[in-house]
Amino acid sequence: MSELIERLRAGLPEEGVLTDPDILRSYANDMASFCPAGTPAALVTPRTVEQVQHTMRTANALRVPVVPQGARTGLSGAANATDGCVLLSLARMDRILEISPVDRIAVVEPGVVNAALSRAVAEHGLSYPPDPSSWEMCTIGGNIGTGSGGLCCVKYGVTAEYVLGLDVVLADGRLLSTGRRTAKGVAGYDLTRLIVGSEGSLGIVVRATLALRAEPPQQLALAAEFPSTAAACEAVCRIMEAGHTPALLELMDRTTLRAVNDLTKMGLPETTGALLLAAFDTPDPAPQLRAVGELCAAAGASEVVPAEDAAESELLLQGRRAALTALEAVKGTSMIDDVCVPRSRLADMLDGTAEIAERYGLTIGVCAHAGDGNTHPTVCFDAADEDESRRARASFDEIMELGLKLGGTITGEHGVGVLKKDWLARELGDVSLELHRAIKTAFDPNGILNPGKLF
Amino acid sequence: MSELIERLRAGLPEEGVLTDPDILRSYANDMASFCPAGTPAALVTPRTVEQVQHTMRTANALRVPVVPQGARTGLSGAANATDGCVLLSLARMDRILEISPVDRIAVVEPGVVNAALSRAVAEHGLSYPPDPSSWEMCTIGGNIGTGSGGLCCVKYGVTAEYVLGLDVVLADGRLLSTGRRTAKGVAGYDLTRLIVGSEGSLGIVVRATLALRAEPPQQLALAAEFPSTAAACEAVCRIMEAGHTPALLELMDRTTLRAVNDLTKMGLPETTGALLLAAFDTPDPAPQLRAVGELCAAAGASEVVPAEDAAESELLLQGRRAALTALEAVKGTSMIDDVCVPRSRLADMLDGTAEIAERYGLTIGVCAHAGDGNTHPTVCFDAADEDESRRARASFDEIMELGLKLGGTITGEHGVGVLKKDWLARELGDVSLELHRAIKTAFDPNGILNPGKLF
Repeated sequence: MSELIERLRAGLPEEGVLTDPDILRSYANDMASFCPAGTPAALVTPRTVEQVQHTMRTANALRVPVVPQGARTGLSGAANATDGCVLLSLARMDRILEISPVDRIAVVEPGVVNAALSRAVAEHGLSYPPDPSSWEMCTIGGNIGTGSGGLCCVKYGVTAEYVLGLDVVLADGRLLSTGRRTAKGVAGYDLTRLIVGSEGSLGIVVRATLALRAEPPQQLALAAEFPSTAAACEAVCRIMEAGHTPALLELMDRTTLRAVNDLTKMGLPETTGALLLAAFDTPDPAPQLRAVGELCAAAGASEVVPAEDAAESELLLQGRRAALTALEAVKGTSMIDDVCVPRSRLADMLDGTAEIAERYGLTIGVCAHAGDGNTHPTVCFDAADEDESRRARASFDEIMELGLKLGGTITGEHGVGVLKKDWLARELGDVSLELHRAIKTAFDPNGILNPGKLF
Repeated sequence: MSELIERLRAGLPEEGVLTDPDILRSYANDMASFCPAGTPAALVTPRTVEQVQHTMRTANALRVPVVPQGARTGLSGAANATDGCVLLSLARMDRILEISPVDRIAVVEPGVVNAALSRAVAEHGLSYPPDPSSWEMCTIGGNIGTGSGGLCCVKYGVTAEYVLGLDVVLADGRLLSTGRRTAKGVAGYDLTRLIVGSEGSLGIVVRATLALRAEPPQQLALAAEFPSTAAACEAVCRIMEAGHTPALLELMDRTTLRAVNDLTKMGLPETTGALLLAAFDTPDPAPQLRAVGELCAAAGASEVVPAEDAAESELLLQGRRAALTALEAVKGTSMIDDVCVPRSRLADMLDGTAEIAERYGLTIGVCAHAGDGNTHPTVCFDAADEDESRRARASFDEIMELGLKLGGTITGEHGVGVLKKDWLARELGDVSLELHRAIKTAFDPNGILNPGKLF
């Protein structure tokens, strides 16, 4: 038994330190394509803060890399193993410690599944808005590491906006508390927000105090068919410009609609250029839906279908929820991008993506959190076909380049991980990157926390 | 002419580098009480980013401290001069560079006055929510430095939530760009949020990209009278627990009501223990106001007065807006605190504050952003009376101590500056403070940016 394993076991129960190669292999990567994973030395599954501290003290003393993991539903390889690392799975620290309706906060451990929290707070008439597609599986700790978004963001914002305070085990095992459980607070630097989205590179989140909202009324949605993505994007701009704040505003292009039909037999329109879904969760959404329907028609929608009730609205959204699985099924493998542009440039982003698909002879379906300008161009390819895989990778780079050119960012909500780390340097520039490195060194002088990710 | 002045003038116009002692003295401090100010060496008033860069390069080369200033309406001494410093006033960089209704953003220079931005975006049907009391004077740069709040925060949040990206001149004169102009983005560490609330200790903000919202309908308010602050706080808890999201929820205690009447002759109720103001800015606020009125009555309100229209609502709010000036007038000097507690502890905070006032034989009026648990206990004293001044300072410390004991923070929205820097260390603890220092060193190795403030 190696010194690492021996020392880990001195502070963790037997079943908390796993070395079985099959198990380690099954934990070696998240759901990203094109991201290599190394061979870990151990999988540690702590149940307490002290066990996490012990793990970090041990790893720091031996200079062993530590890769924190939640549910490994990430799409950028941020949770992938590096050779010889300790995989630190926080999945078993999954207790909801407190829900306070008066203070509108929840205090949770990092392994709590997003949907479990949503259901628990709903019993108190509250909502935790961030709703990534993987919400039935992904953990709050993973959401915090990535800075996850979801469908709700156009009205309710991203994970970062709901994190009030954190307990974080630092690289050397010390415990840092950031933030607060109050609604407001400006005492000192915002270390909470520095940790959110840092992909495990600054510390291990072991507890989070989250802001909640009052549960909104059920959504009422409409679907609008457009002859082109450009016309749908025009409608998005006019809707936002007119001052509407929909609870979601989603776009699917023709490729996505066909893929969803192939998978689900839902009978979505296939001859249309793009489908736009808008929903409102206000007490009386009818006037807003009517106004949005009119703006869609004015932007060239061939058909506008408002839902009669919440159940019909849910049906309209099911197609959108199936989009990623459907696009993956097209050719066996898919690679989802996450470029976010100012919404005024959304049409340019989608036209440019179509041009890239055509030039590379690839199928690229796009669904988008259109209200946010956050597009998910998804390259469908056969991983066994080397040439197609190469083209898929190259088109992916061109899509990020296009996003930057349009004043956007390489990642709206999925993070950088391994997948985009070369591109991060390009987006940030030298001055910012130098400060990133200095901050990283301040938190983790030995560089053991998730090395090789982010930058 | 000193080397400092000579080198500053090499890159700034004559009128941009001032050394007149009277002028320097008039710029030496902000609006905080009990905060000493040193004697500055120069006041620099740049109009361009390049002039700010030149100033920082010069100061860094000569190891001269630089104190950035906006409108100096701050309440913690963060903008106070230190001996021999360069006061860097950003007030003349006051252009609104862009307002985009489609992208719902504004791009501004730091010297833009909060109210000027609010009015400019209102012309496009947009709103910039953060509304500190000093909004007619204070600048966006100052708001960003402090992390300012206001009345709107219970629904719309604080300044930090509206800052998407920043251009920042670093201590050595290099230009850092942070963030983005997209609605979402998670590329790299959140340096934007690290700068917000850092009180000029990490860099000089020279440009900000701000998120805007659609302009809400006009507010409709109600006022409720309670026999005690405890009863009013009970109503606050029940209102929030019931899932309401008022656009403001403000409390004034009896001392404050009397002070406002003395100043304005408004005829507010003086025999009541506390007045609660609630307002909604939804399309149909009447049912919400009715429900809130009922909750107030159930919590013991002796009277509930709903406004008939927006004009009457505005009248109700005028008393609240006059509160700080009124409390200052009571004894000539006032010292406003800014303790924020979980709203479930608001009643304990107010009872404790009353106990402290009695024990010290002081007049302490409290107004509070009650929905946020953010209290402004305001000590009224005669600055010429040494003993009373000493007691005022001591009571102030006890109020912060009480806030921390109740799970709160020493500052909800005013910042730390000079006034609370001893207390910041206490709130943060050693581990956090060490990381604060390391981050400060990463940004400003020579420690020239606003030294002696914050920590």
